[in-house]
Amino acid sequence: MKIAIVGACGRLGAAVCEILQKKHEIFKIDLKKSQYSCLEELNQPPDMIVDASCAAQSVRSAAFANILGLPLVIACTGHDEQQLEKIAFASQSIPVFLAYNMSVGVQVFKDAAQCIAENFESDVHIHEIHHKNKKDAPSGTAKEIKKLLDYYNPTISYARGGNVIGTHEIDFFGEYETITLTHTALSRSCFANGVAAASEWIVDKPNGIYGMRDLTHGDAVIHR
Amino acid sequence: MKIAIVGACGRLGAAVCEILQKKHEIFKIDLKKSQYSCLEELNQPPDMIVDASCAAQSVRSAAFANILGLPLVIACTGHDEQQLEKIAFASQSIPVFLAYNMSVGVQVFKDAAQCIAENFESDVHIHEIHHKNKKDAPSGTAKEIKKLLDYYNPTISYARGGNVIGTHEIDFFGEYETITLTHTALSRSCFANGVAAASEWIVDKPNGIYGMRDLTHGDAVIHR
Amino acid sequence: MKIAIVGACGRLGAAVCEILQKKHEIFKIDLKKSQYSCLEELNQPPDMIVDASCAAQSVRSAAFANILGLPLVIACTGHDEQQLEKIAFASQSIPVFLAYNMSVGVQVFKDAAQCIAENFESDVHIHEIHHKNKKDAPSGTAKEIKKLLDYYNPTISYARGGNVIGTHEIDFFGEYETITLTHTALSRSCFANGVAAASEWIVDKPNGIYGMRDLTHGDAVIHR
Amino acid sequence: MKIAIVGACGRLGAAVCEILQKKHEIFKIDLKKSQYSCLEELNQPPDMIVDASCAAQSVRSAAFANILGLPLVIACTGHDEQQLEKIAFASQSIPVFLAYNMSVGVQVFKDAAQCIAENFESDVHIHEIHHKNKKDAPSGTAKEIKKLLDYYNPTISYARGGNVIGTHEIDFFGEYETITLTHTALSRSCFANGVAAASEWIVDKPNGIYGMRDLTHGDAVIHR
Repeated sequence: MKIAIVGACGRLGAAVCEILQKKHEIFKIDLKKSQYSCLEELNQPPDMIVDASCAAQSVRSAAFANILGLPLVIACTGHDEQQLEKIAFASQSIPVFLAYNMSVGVQVFKDAAQCIAENFESDVHIHEIHHKNKKDAPSGTAKEIKKLLDYYNPTISYARGGNVIGTHEIDFFGEYETITLTHTALSRSCFANGVAAASEWIVDKPNGIYGMRDLTHGDAVIHR
Repeated sequence: MKIAIVGACGRLGAAVCEILQKKHEIFKIDLKKSQYSCLEELNQPPDMIVDASCAAQSVRSAAFANILGLPLVIACTGHDEQQLEKIAFASQSIPVFLAYNMSVGVQVFKDAAQCIAENFESDVHIHEIHHKNKKDAPSGTAKEIKKLLDYYNPTISYARGGNVIGTHEIDFFGEYETITLTHTALSRSCFANGVAAASEWIVDKPNGIYGMRDLTHGDAVIHR
Repeated sequence: MKIAIVGACGRLGAAVCEILQKKHEIFKIDLKKSQYSCLEELNQPPDMIVDASCAAQSVRSAAFANILGLPLVIACTGHDEQQLEKIAFASQSIPVFLAYNMSVGVQVFKDAAQCIAENFESDVHIHEIHHKNKKDAPSGTAKEIKKLLDYYNPTISYARGGNVIGTHEIDFFGEYETITLTHTALSRSCFANGVAAASEWIVDKPNGIYGMRDLTHGDAVIHR
Repeated sequence: MKIAIVGACGRLGAAVCEILQKKHEIFKIDLKKSQYSCLEELNQPPDMIVDASCAAQSVRSAAFANILGLPLVIACTGHDEQQLEKIAFASQSIPVFLAYNMSVGVQVFKDAAQCIAENFESDVHIHEIHHKNKKDAPSGTAKEIKKLLDYYNPTISYARGGNVIGTHEIDFFGEYETITLTHTALSRSCFANGVAAASEWIVDKPNGIYGMRDLTHGDAVIHR
């Protein structure tokens, strides 16, 4: 498979390239110091696009993928409402995989959180920790968890420091007992593994927006 | 309801008495400094028996309950094979509630652990912490978790110190990410709450052995 | 020693009474359901006053102690600038022990935090957790830690839930390694132990304001 | 400076090479697939030797360094008594830096642990976690901490799983409060940073054995 990887020189992008190039032909696209500086420079169309750059750029990738009818994996966070609408529009014509956290472990973590919240009467708090260069706060994953557990009115806090890759902790404070669930990313490879899995998974799916839950549960929810 | 509480002066027993006496008539039974020193001293039969003493004594309580046909809640740990057999024998004629950890939170914790283990490829480790006077190690709860997750070959470790009521931690070490699930008892009241719930729940059940899972899931598994 | 305990029916006050009454004659003072409703009701002057009520009340206790020339232990938090000034004024004439966290362990925790911050280049974050009825946030202890580590620009976050007595965590995020220091109060008895120790310690001290550090380090810093 | 790095293809060795080659000329030595398969193959003597291979090999490196009179940094663990004696013998003629954990953060962590143990009456427990391929258990660092806190009779436990680089946790269980100190290595770069620092530090030191504490405290303890 020929895969164009946008944001190929970023931290996540580089890790994704390393995994995907073992089995696929990849085209590295990055504004600086890469094979290509943008998708338009490609001499031949790829079979699919992975975007690991930033929210604004990923919308441009969605438009490009839409025109060529290519499957798209978006592996960056921080989209605003308007950007999400544009991605949703593209997903009417192409399959789009959009996940704020590409690790399989985070999906399992979220499923477990939901299971605990439903069965354990408690006050819920979400705390996340990331490296100090992370721009958005709270993280996209923390926001997704908040949304998932919305019924239980979770509060949320965060810390930034060092090179912490990503830690998410959910506290369920019961009357006289506490359950805490923590996910720690040890290496960006866990996200890159997930991106690679998503890339191979989405390529033959119908148009629509997909997430990590579709991949792990195997039941594609097709929109439109 | 008239409830006889064996081990009424122990830490857990005292907390159970405090809760149950709000709604029920209780008879406190303890070898030292209590209303009665043994079940045989009671002038009138109770409606049920709660045993919060020790493994050896709880077998005697089971025999006593069996003779009188009374429902029994066993809220202590450390039974050996032979003792378990005797309890199983009694459960042919009376309903017996037997749980190594009486907190509802621990049950939810165990359910979540099973859910994570089944969906997240990982090395599993169980670590538990209790006060320094705890006699058995690893804790009955840790052993139950090990059995529950047996397929994943969990390793196990423990610490003893201070007045820690009870902390159980399960680490799921994935390739590049770790999920950790922790249950912390803040007060013995969480166990006492569970014992009280079990006492009221078991009183009208058919003969058999029941556990916390039966209580939270509401589907009684009747043995024999 | 005759000790008047203001706020004797609060959570901390009750635990303090339990410890101090073993060795001292105590007068319980509380607005509701206690021996006395205010200090003025006492028939005889005590040898010292412990205030475990609230910021506003503790200022009145300071004025009262000042008039009678009695040593004072203030074991509540949340004082504003004006209240602190009034306490400082009283400390010109009487010895006042003022600590936002009365546990000896918290003092050791703070000393260790300072030691780490000074020797380990890192981004510092403080996270605290307390029961959901706690009124002020962040906790007085968290604010004190922030002040102590001010040079390192710590950020701060908090959670509220269940009956958590008090957990303070400090993360030191180095470039490729993290040191985390956590203090967990298992029982209010740890504060009550500290209040009892402070009460017996301050009674023969010169006028001035003292804190837990003076007690553990044994070197009284006398103000004025 | 010309630095020979033994075990250059191992995990730690490779990270050390990456840092040291920025400022120094390095010779990579490894049994497999490297520039040189052993120290004896070198055409010219280096200015110093770093050994990041294994206990048995590091003794051979010590003998080699001893013959040539070269400073040596040993950055591997698991030495038995006999091996330590041979290293001590070499240190009579050359400066040897020997640390079971080369991270600066671990040294600060150990200093903080000692400070807490000395001031906080508690039961002490050490728990360590490493990747599943780690051969020795408990880790050399855990053993060093146990030795450091020996007076307080620490107990020790460990877990192995995934790719965890190295986590050490010390629990200080007080009567009603717990202090926990945790060190987490986020990347082998933290050890490599320490090895690089030790390499530049030891080169002009007198004969003797040195450790991380000498480096961070700046006061060289010379043996013999």
